[in-house]
Amino acid sequence: MPLSVNSPERFMQEALKQAHIAFEEGEVPVGAVVVADNRVIARAHNQVELLNDPTAHAEILAITSAAEALGSKYLEGCAMYVTLEPCVMCAGALNWAQIDAVYYGARDEKRGFSLLEKSIFHPKTRVSSGIMGEQCGNLLHEFFKNLREE
Amino acid sequence: MPLSVNSPERFMQEALKQAHIAFEEGEVPVGAVVVADNRVIARAHNQVELLNDPTAHAEILAITSAAEALGSKYLEGCAMYVTLEPCVMCAGALNWAQIDAVYYGARDEKRGFSLLEKSIFHPKTRVSSGIMGEQCGNLLHEFFKNLREE
Repeated sequence: MPLSVNSPERFMQEALKQAHIAFEEGEVPVGAVVVADNRVIARAHNQVELLNDPTAHAEILAITSAAEALGSKYLEGCAMYVTLEPCVMCAGALNWAQIDAVYYGARDEKRGFSLLEKSIFHPKTRVSSGIMGEQCGNLLHEFFKNLREE
Repeated sequence: MPLSVNSPERFMQEALKQAHIAFEEGEVPVGAVVVADNRVIARAHNQVELLNDPTAHAEILAITSAAEALGSKYLEGCAMYVTLEPCVMCAGALNWAQIDAVYYGARDEKRGFSLLEKSIFHPKTRVSSGIMGEQCGNLLHEFFKNLREE
């Protein structure tokens, strides 16, 4: 069945394309896009290794890029699609951005925000998990499997 | 009494200088420095308004700058001095950086990491609060008082 034009899966596909770019570059394969008015306004992939910067997660780079595109520090009317459950740093950043919605793919059982008992998102932010979770997770498993075999 | 050369107060003075720059620029006055081998290797102040970027907190900018200076995503052997208690985003970033120590000045009762029950710092990170807390806090109070009177 073809994806409907504005389904969450359509935008998660875009995030997954970014994760594949990260994979090719030897980065932990996580990708994110920010969507406003059913249009992608920012795309980013994890660049921690390339930039030697522990803050260069896909979400942080996508927030910075989206804020620049909108000319606003608040991502009003925006949704983020990210292939992996955001960590505490990224969830905190999404809180400051007061984003409307976050859709994520695979769970991160080691570093995901949901390990905390208290929600750290902004009260207005809707959070949905498991969007194409298997595909997002498989790419990560492949990456870490390759690392172990090196 | 003059400050001893390598006292926490000496480096917090440097962070406070950065906070004053933020103040002059109309930013919430928070400053941070990163210290390695008793030398400041990165200085930053909050630039959220200038950059229209909700992630441009002093700590995030200082981590990025210190990681670049060291050529490493891990801030091993480093300490951060920051005038305000880090928020959840910044504490999460300091966790990824595996920094050795964090010294902060004023408490942030609304957005500080310590509102969470669980520590979100890396287990190896030593955290000390209240370094020149009054001076750091006074600058923030003055900033918000001025805002309200505008």
